[in-house]
Amino acid sequence: MLEKLDMKKKLSKADYNAVMDELGERLGQVQRMAREAKKPIIIVFEGWRGARRSAIINTMMQQMDARGFDVYSTVRMSEEEHNQPFFTFFWQHLPALGNIAVYHRSWYYLKTANEVACKEGNASCCQFISYDHINTFEKMLTDDNYIILKYFLHLSNNQQKENIAKNAKTLGKAWRDVSPAIDESDKYEEYLERYEKMLEATDKVNAPWHLIAADDRRSAEIEIITSIVETVEKAVNTPVAAPAAVIRPNTKYDVLGKINATQELSKEDYKKELDKYQKRLKQLQIEMFKAQIPTVICFEGWDAAGKGGAIRRLTAALDPLGFSVHPVSAPNVVERQFHYLWRFWVHLPEPGNIAIFDRTWYGRVMVERIEGFAKDYEWQRAYDEIKDMELQWAEHGFAIAKFWLQIDSDEQLRRFNDRQNDPMKQWKITEEDWRNREKWDAYEEAVNEMLVRTDTSYAPWTVVEGNNKYFARLKVLKTIVDLFEKKLGK
Amino acid sequence: MLEKLDMKKKLSKADYNAVMDELGERLGQVQRMAREAKKPIIIVFEGWRGARRSAIINTMMQQMDARGFDVYSTVRMSEEEHNQPFFTFFWQHLPALGNIAVYHRSWYYLKTANEVACKEGNASCCQFISYDHINTFEKMLTDDNYIILKYFLHLSNNQQKENIAKNAKTLGKAWRDVSPAIDESDKYEEYLERYEKMLEATDKVNAPWHLIAADDRRSAEIEIITSIVETVEKAVNTPVAAPAAVIRPNTKYDVLGKINATQELSKEDYKKELDKYQKRLKQLQIEMFKAQIPTVICFEGWDAAGKGGAIRRLTAALDPLGFSVHPVSAPNVVERQFHYLWRFWVHLPEPGNIAIFDRTWYGRVMVERIEGFAKDYEWQRAYDEIKDMELQWAEHGFAIAKFWLQIDSDEQLRRFNDRQNDPMKQWKITEEDWRNREKWDAYEEAVNEMLVRTDTSYAPWTVVEGNNKYFARLKVLKTIVDLFEKKLGK
Repeated sequence: MLEKLDMKKKLSKADYNAVMDELGERLGQVQRMAREAKKPIIIVFEGWRGARRSAIINTMMQQMDARGFDVYSTVRMSEEEHNQPFFTFFWQHLPALGNIAVYHRSWYYLKTANEVACKEGNASCCQFISYDHINTFEKMLTDDNYIILKYFLHLSNNQQKENIAKNAKTLGKAWRDVSPAIDESDKYEEYLERYEKMLEATDKVNAPWHLIAADDRRSAEIEIITSIVETVEKAVNTPVAAPAAVIRPNTKYDVLGKINATQELSKEDYKKELDKYQKRLKQLQIEMFKAQIPTVICFEGWDAAGKGGAIRRLTAALDPLGFSVHPVSAPNVVERQFHYLWRFWVHLPEPGNIAIFDRTWYGRVMVERIEGFAKDYEWQRAYDEIKDMELQWAEHGFAIAKFWLQIDSDEQLRRFNDRQNDPMKQWKITEEDWRNREKWDAYEEAVNEMLVRTDTSYAPWTVVEGNNKYFARLKVLKTIVDLFEKKLGK
Repeated sequence: MLEKLDMKKKLSKADYNAVMDELGERLGQVQRMAREAKKPIIIVFEGWRGARRSAIINTMMQQMDARGFDVYSTVRMSEEEHNQPFFTFFWQHLPALGNIAVYHRSWYYLKTANEVACKEGNASCCQFISYDHINTFEKMLTDDNYIILKYFLHLSNNQQKENIAKNAKTLGKAWRDVSPAIDESDKYEEYLERYEKMLEATDKVNAPWHLIAADDRRSAEIEIITSIVETVEKAVNTPVAAPAAVIRPNTKYDVLGKINATQELSKEDYKKELDKYQKRLKQLQIEMFKAQIPTVICFEGWDAAGKGGAIRRLTAALDPLGFSVHPVSAPNVVERQFHYLWRFWVHLPEPGNIAIFDRTWYGRVMVERIEGFAKDYEWQRAYDEIKDMELQWAEHGFAIAKFWLQIDSDEQLRRFNDRQNDPMKQWKITEEDWRNREKWDAYEEAVNEMLVRTDTSYAPWTVVEGNNKYFARLKVLKTIVDLFEKKLGK
């Protein structure tokens, strides 16, 4: 693709100034338009070393409001950030609605740098993100009305050498000294091939590459800013159309109907077993920490199914420095400014730690589906989005357990009434619980579909028979013990 | 203080269980009460190694809702967190309104650990936080209705040795293996003296120490949880009284009245000088980065005084990877859940970086004072709080510049009218600007007091004559160039 570019373009300083005067004003304008329209914008600058990304970003900043305009660079990531699943850094720095995030070297450079470091024997771990994951990541965002603008700044080999030499003279570039980006100038052909492959694999209709002939900085700047202005203007002025209907599986699944939620376990047996598994878990937590394996444990289930109690029996066994519990309810006003998966990515466990989610991202295909908080095409595509997210974590080495705590409708009613009638427990039950109960059938359908479609080899669902709390708590503990042992190769 | 404790206390398992049954329920209850009352609670566990902090925290967690209950530990801080100003980590992990944060080893341990590392030659930097700063930090929070509960878990030397040996046997404690806490058992007397000094220096009426005889874990747990329950119950049920009136300086200051906001500078001279200072600044940014000195630059001034333009001329000279601009407006719904200084602490610059604030924490003593968003006693104590914050940054090595952009009232009117009449500029002016303008005199009084009372050797105010934008922008650049050169010892 790159070889088709016209590298001879030139723009005089006078012509540049003449154009930039008006163009700069328009850039400021479209920023305000995007803010007004609550469109989040992602701008990616990739390309050769020496392509003067910083200068271009600087020119842009002169025209724009600093409010809601942020610049991030993967050359400045910390070691801890490098140790997280690939996209974590980018999730953490996603623009909120109406804001602009500029990535001075993005996921593309990060992938390349990881691969080069590995090839040269400088990497502790040689696991690479696939272009599929990159495409999925971008698709998920553009599906959610993010605008993604990707610029590849192309330099000829000669011009690159010239630029690098010039940069080195101006006292060195401090940031590049600390963590220098790859200098491709001596292996230009090799990298050209690599970049070509990257571009062809990720040039997609929803997030196409803008290939920029950057030997001449001035024409490159004009080209880039013009394209930003025109794309954003168009995007803001084009009404968002609902996507075409998706193909829905018309099988009715019935996972829950086959579960006998009532299982027997006496209190004495429970106490004995509980003690045994808690002790085992305590030890395994330490081993998981030493092996630096992160764990995600998800709890879903009917209201009053015993999620809280199961979590407490689990955490009772754990060192409080090594886990955190994230209770999930309706997104707050800040969380609503982002893609719905954002608030989970920012709470991933550090290496060796355990993140426990009390309700999860599966709300998208349950409550949001049933209450209409997500449009049909939104929750319908969520199965794919969620599976891709969990796959990324699994590929990064995460241990993942997902529990559905199952009770039958009669049992729920009994527990609701108990709560209602006991002054010490009344705080546990709300009008909303009763309202949700009326929608039992709709939830059952949604849960059945979820349990089938998101049950994967790397993140399987465990349905827990929950009418007997003792049995349920033990099954949760046992499942986690098994998972840890498997992960540790025991 | 510690030697007065009764270390012989003992509680049988049966007695412990009998008490804990009811106490546990009450603990859950007071958590809900505190949430309801929007009281944030900070619980600090300090004391000897081996005092079984984790076990106590675990017992608490069994009774409490994970929602809004978080545990942090200074033994798990990353190197980057260690490189920030002392209290940054704690600000970042402050509980929101109604939430509980538990510090398993807090600022007290961090101070001790820093000092011990330094004494043993294991520290790269031997700067210590003073007990004064610790007391100020706690006072600022309790003034803002945070509840702070500080527990010192005291062990006899024998019991400590026994506990440590026992811990070591149970497969080692993973977290302690990675970054082991100080083992004081061989220098018990020396540490006893150190802890005594710490306790006596920081035992204050607003945040007293609870000294706990912890040789017997069961009685210690009961004592701690009882004290949490009783303190929170009392705090929630006691109406918050406004503090006694503060002594106000009755001098009327007149800094602004002595400023001649009109200074001459021609466009040609400006262009020449601008170019010179921008080039110098570009170079100095790199040197500041190499020296890893963080910078905070504050912009305050009248509406339309030219803050945005000055910031753009400044950032035009800077590498975008090395700075960020933080525009500050009314706190959002999340920010309102915290102490008013929280949102600034979480945006401090990393070592070598520049954080530019377009409006700042000084809003507390200007707009919040004038509009009544802060009560009298709140903004009146803010001078102290702000000075203490800036002093901490300065002691940590920060470069700090604070600008007040001054224009006179006629000039503001001219600029407002310009904006109103130019379709391209109308977005810059709002009804609120006009309303603020009507309160010019009240603002002038507040600004005068602020400029006098928060003008310090470590964070001085620069008043910038702003009627001529060229002059103002240059003065800002020059001041920053001077600051950087001074910091770099030039």
